[in-house]
Amino acid sequence: MSWNVYLAGEIHSDWREQIASGAERAGLNVAFTSPVTDHGASDEVGVAILGDERDNFWKDHKGAGVNAIRTQTLIRQADVVVVRFGDRYKQWNAAFDAGFAAALGKPVVTLHDPELDHALKEVDRAAQATARTPEQVVAVLRYVIRGELP
Amino acid sequence: MSWNVYLAGEIHSDWREQIASGAERAGLNVAFTSPVTDHGASDEVGVAILGDERDNFWKDHKGAGVNAIRTQTLIRQADVVVVRFGDRYKQWNAAFDAGFAAALGKPVVTLHDPELDHALKEVDRAAQATARTPEQVVAVLRYVIRGELP
Amino acid sequence: MSWNVYLAGEIHSDWREQIASGAERAGLNVAFTSPVTDHGASDEVGVAILGDERDNFWKDHKGAGVNAIRTQTLIRQADVVVVRFGDRYKQWNAAFDAGFAAALGKPVVTLHDPELDHALKEVDRAAQATARTPEQVVAVLRYVIRGELP
Amino acid sequence: MSWNVYLAGEIHSDWREQIASGAERAGLNVAFTSPVTDHGASDEVGVAILGDERDNFWKDHKGAGVNAIRTQTLIRQADVVVVRFGDRYKQWNAAFDAGFAAALGKPVVTLHDPELDHALKEVDRAAQATARTPEQVVAVLRYVIRGELP
Amino acid sequence: MSWNVYLAGEIHSDWREQIASGAERAGLNVAFTSPVTDHGASDEVGVAILGDERDNFWKDHKGAGVNAIRTQTLIRQADVVVVRFGDRYKQWNAAFDAGFAAALGKPVVTLHDPELDHALKEVDRAAQATARTPEQVVAVLRYVIRGELP
Amino acid sequence: MSWNVYLAGEIHSDWREQIASGAERAGLNVAFTSPVTDHGASDEVGVAILGDERDNFWKDHKGAGVNAIRTQTLIRQADVVVVRFGDRYKQWNAAFDAGFAAALGKPVVTLHDPELDHALKEVDRAAQATARTPEQVVAVLRYVIRGELP
Amino acid sequence: MSWNVYLAGEIHSDWREQIASGAERAGLNVAFTSPVTDHGASDEVGVAILGDERDNFWKDHKGAGVNAIRTQTLIRQADVVVVRFGDRYKQWNAAFDAGFAAALGKPVVTLHDPELDHALKEVDRAAQATARTPEQVVAVLRYVIRGELP
Amino acid sequence: MSWNVYLAGEIHSDWREQIASGAERAGLNVAFTSPVTDHGASDEVGVAILGDERDNFWKDHKGAGVNAIRTQTLIRQADVVVVRFGDRYKQWNAAFDAGFAAALGKPVVTLHDPELDHALKEVDRAAQATARTPEQVVAVLRYVIRGELP
Repeated sequence: MSWNVYLAGEIHSDWREQIASGAERAGLNVAFTSPVTDHGASDEVGVAILGDERDNFWKDHKGAGVNAIRTQTLIRQADVVVVRFGDRYKQWNAAFDAGFAAALGKPVVTLHDPELDHALKEVDRAAQATARTPEQVVAVLRYVIRGELP
Repeated sequence: MSWNVYLAGEIHSDWREQIASGAERAGLNVAFTSPVTDHGASDEVGVAILGDERDNFWKDHKGAGVNAIRTQTLIRQADVVVVRFGDRYKQWNAAFDAGFAAALGKPVVTLHDPELDHALKEVDRAAQATARTPEQVVAVLRYVIRGELP
Repeated sequence: MSWNVYLAGEIHSDWREQIASGAERAGLNVAFTSPVTDHGASDEVGVAILGDERDNFWKDHKGAGVNAIRTQTLIRQADVVVVRFGDRYKQWNAAFDAGFAAALGKPVVTLHDPELDHALKEVDRAAQATARTPEQVVAVLRYVIRGELP
Repeated sequence: MSWNVYLAGEIHSDWREQIASGAERAGLNVAFTSPVTDHGASDEVGVAILGDERDNFWKDHKGAGVNAIRTQTLIRQADVVVVRFGDRYKQWNAAFDAGFAAALGKPVVTLHDPELDHALKEVDRAAQATARTPEQVVAVLRYVIRGELP
Repeated sequence: MSWNVYLAGEIHSDWREQIASGAERAGLNVAFTSPVTDHGASDEVGVAILGDERDNFWKDHKGAGVNAIRTQTLIRQADVVVVRFGDRYKQWNAAFDAGFAAALGKPVVTLHDPELDHALKEVDRAAQATARTPEQVVAVLRYVIRGELP
Repeated sequence: MSWNVYLAGEIHSDWREQIASGAERAGLNVAFTSPVTDHGASDEVGVAILGDERDNFWKDHKGAGVNAIRTQTLIRQADVVVVRFGDRYKQWNAAFDAGFAAALGKPVVTLHDPELDHALKEVDRAAQATARTPEQVVAVLRYVIRGELP
Repeated sequence: MSWNVYLAGEIHSDWREQIASGAERAGLNVAFTSPVTDHGASDEVGVAILGDERDNFWKDHKGAGVNAIRTQTLIRQADVVVVRFGDRYKQWNAAFDAGFAAALGKPVVTLHDPELDHALKEVDRAAQATARTPEQVVAVLRYVIRGELP
Repeated sequence: MSWNVYLAGEIHSDWREQIASGAERAGLNVAFTSPVTDHGASDEVGVAILGDERDNFWKDHKGAGVNAIRTQTLIRQADVVVVRFGDRYKQWNAAFDAGFAAALGKPVVTLHDPELDHALKEVDRAAQATARTPEQVVAVLRYVIRGELP
C-alpha cells in the first residue's frame, strides 16, 4: 500500500523538500501532498481567476475558497497529516488544518521548535507525535510504514 | 492522484464539453462525471425500462429514481462538485445536488451569470467559489490540482 | 416526545401559519422552526449587522452566511423537513435545503402544485411524501405522530 | 429551543462577558459555554491534579489533555462556535478549535479586528460570518434565534 | 435517564401491550415507540391523505413513504430496537427495520419462536439477544436498565 | 470507473447469472459481488470451519457470523445493491440487507414479481427502482453507467 | 448542563462509589452510568433470562450480548468515559470499552496504578488523562465542569 | 477485489506467518497488515526517533503515539480485523484494537484458546467469529473471499 501524507503549514522554508527527499532516500512508498506553496499565487488566486475585488477582505476570501478546495480535499484523502509551525507569521491556517484533521480522526504529526511548545500545547496534545526536524518526520514515516528504527 | 469532478446542473448548453476540453488542453488529471445529459432519455428512462405509467407524476418518479442511482453515487465519489445554473428551466435538481454535496462536505463550485446572483445567494454561500465561465472553472481546477495561475 | 419540523422554502404566502394552526387544532406536539421569513430582513441582515458592502454579490454573501447559521442548525435538529415550492421566484434555496436534508438522512415532505411536478421530479423522488395543501401536511404529521387518519 | 453557543479563543479580555450580557439584555435563550478562562488554572491543571512533571513539554501535555476533555465535549454539543482572535499570543488553539468545529459541520463565527484579516483568511472563509465587535456577535445571535435586525 | 425502545414488526398480536404492561409493572423508565399498528390505517394512509391512486403499487408506495417518516425517525431516536417476527405474513419490513437499525449501530433484540430460527439466522446474528416471549424482553430491559435478574 | 454492484437475496434461481451475462453482453464495466450462493455451504460454514455444535441455533449463529463478514463488507463497498425476492422461503436476510444498505445511503434496486408488491412495499419505497426481470436490472445498470436507453 | 460520565472497567473494588461520593461532595452536576457491577448477575444474565445453555461459550455469549445492550448504549450517550484497570483478572472488556469509546471520539480518562503503565501504554495514549486515584478523577471532572483547581 | 486483513494482537508467536502462508497456499487475494511486531522496536520507537525521556511513562507515551499512527490507519483501511490473544502479557492493546474496530463497524475475528473464553466473552460477542487456530482463520478468509469450505 502507498501512504498519503499531507504536509500542512509553513511555506517559507524547504522542510517539505527535506521530508520528500528523505523519504525517497529511505525508499518509502509515500505520496506527499500539500497546499500550494507559492505564497504569491496562493494570495492572488481568487482575483487572478475569478475577477478583481475592491476590498482586500473579499480578495482574501475568494482566494481562501479556492485554496480550500485543494487543502480540504487532500486532508480528507490523507492517511497522515504533518503540520509544520515556524517562527514567522501567525500560521493560523496550519492550526486550523490540524483541528480539521483531528476532528476527522486523522493522525497528526506536528513539527516545530521547542520555543513554540507552550503556545502549541493544545495542538501537540491532539497530535500523535511532535517532531523537531524533518529527519524525525521521515524516521516516523519509515517506522510507521516499514517498522524500521533509525 | 486523479481528481473526480462531478458536473451537475444545466444540460442544454455545451459547458461540460468546454470544461472537459479545457482541462484536456491544460493536461489535468481529472475524471469528469455527470448526470445523463440527454434530456429525452433522462425524462423517459423510468417508463422505458421499468414499464409504462398512466400518471405523469409516477412516470417522473420512476425516472428520477433511476437517475438518482447515477447522480448520488457519482456525487458521493466526487472530490469536487461543479454546479451550473442557466437561465432556462427551474433547475431545482441542480440546487438539490448542491445541497446534497454540501451536506456531505464536498467542495462546491457554482457556475452562473451575475443576473442569477441574488437568487442563488444561499447556494453560492455554501460554495467555495463562484465562476462565470467554463474557462474559470478550468482555471480553478488547474490551480487546485497543479497550483498554477492562469 | 415532541417532534421538530422545519418548514423550508417559500416565504411569500401564509402556508407556515396554516400548518401551525392546523397542527395546533389537531393538538399535535410539534415544534415548528423555519428560516427568517421577513424577506427584507433576510436580504439585509449581512450588511445591517456586519457592515455595508459596495458590491451586491458580497452583500448577499454576507447575508446568506448569517441566514445559514440559522437554517443549517435547524435542519440538523429537525426530525422532518417540509419544503414548499411556490410559483414565484427561483427558490433555489428551497431545493438546496431539500438536498441538504436528504443527504443527512432526514425525511423530506414536499409541498407544491401539480404544475411544478415535472420540474421538481428529482426533489419529489428524494422526499417521503408530496403534498398539495398545508392541510395535507398537517394530516401527514398527525398520522406520523399519532397514527390517526383524517 | 435553547441555543448552545461555544465561545472559543482569546482569554485576556472581557469579550465573553460582553456577549453574555448583551444576549441577556436582548432576552436571548442562549447557553454559553467556553474553555476555562483562568489562564493560570488552565496552564497548571495537569500537574495540579495529576502530579508534577520535570519537563515543561509534559506539564503542558497533561494540562492540554484535561482542557481538551472540556473543550472538545462542549464544541461537539454547540450549535454555533464563536472564535475570538486578539492581538496577543499566538492563539493557535483558537484556530485549532475553528478547524475542529468546521470539520464537524458546526457554523463558525469569527471575531477579530481587520488587521488580522489577511492572516485569518482561511479561518474566515470557513466561517459563516466575521464580526468585529461583541455587539455584532450578539446581533448575529439575535437575528439567528429571533429573526430581528438591530 | 429514560430509555427509548422501538418495537418493530408484527402488528397482529398484542406483544407490544404485553411488553409495555410488563415494563410498567417492573417500574422501568422506558418510552416505547412503534409503527402505526392499525393495519388498515397503515395500508390506506397514502391515498387517504395524499389522494387516490389507480395502481396498487403506487397506493402502497405513497403509504409506505408516510409510514417511513414515522418509523425511520423513531428508529434513529431509539436506544434499543426490538423486532418481533410472527408466523403470519412475510414481515419483510420487520427484517428491513432490523437491518436499518443494525447499520446505525443500534442494539437489536429479536423476538420469535424457535421454528423461525433457521430463517432468521442472519437477523439473529446481528442482534444482541433473541427472546421467545414478551416477558423475556421485559426481563432483558429490566436487566439492561436496572441490573436486576428475574 | 468500474461500478461495484452487490446482488443480494434469493439463491435458488439463476438471476445473478442472467444479470452478469446481460451486463457482459452490454459491455458494462461492472464488478458483481454476492453472498455465497451455495445453500449447503452457506448453512454449514460455521460448524465446518469452527467446530461442531449440539444446538442448531448456535450452528446457525456461527454460520451467519462467517457469512456476515462477507456480506456486510461487500455491501459497504458496493455502489448499488440489487435485492431479489423470490416466492420460496422467508428471505428475511434479503430484507435485512436492504435495510442495512438503505441506512448506509446506498441506492437499492429491488427485483421481484408483482404478487409480492404489497408485502414488500416498505422495502420498495426505500429503493430507487423496482424491477421485474433481470433484463430490467441490466437495463437500469446500462443507463446508470452509460446513459443509454434500451 | 449535566455531564454524562460512564465508569467502565473493574467491578471488584469501590472506586465507582468513591468517585460518585466525591462528585457529590463537590456538588458536580454529573450523571454517572456503569455496566452492571454485580459479577454474578453479569455472568448469569444470558441464561437466567433467555434460557439455559449446555456450553459455557454460549452461556457467556448470551450474557455478553445482553450486557452489551447496556454498555454500548451508555458509552454512546456518555460525554466522558473513565476506564479503571485493577490488578486482578484480564479486564479485556475494559480495554475493549476504551477502544470503542476512542473510535467514537469520546474523551477517555484511564485510572490505574503505575505498575500497569507499560501494559496500558496504548490505552493511555488514546486517553486524555491518566489518573491514579478516584480523587484525581473527581478533580478532573470538577475542573472540566467548573474550571476549579483542587 | 483484494481484501485487506489487519492482524492485531499477540506478537510473540508465529501466528501471523501461519495465516499468511496458509492464505498464500490457498491462493487468496489478501493483503495482510499488522502492527510492528518487533517488540523491542515497538517499545523503543518513541525515544529512538523523537528524543530520550527521563520517565518511563512518557517514553511509553511517545512510542505508543507513533505506533498508533500505524495501527489506527491500518485498522481504518482494513476490511476484516483478526485479533489474537495469547497466554502471556495483558494484551490490553489487542482488546483496545477490537473495540476500536467494532465501533467503526469492521468485522472482527478473534483467535484464542478456550481457556480464555470467559475472560474474552465481551470481545468474542462483538466479533463475527472466534477461531482456535490460524488454520481456521485461513479457512474463514477462504470462505469469505471465495465461498469454499475446507
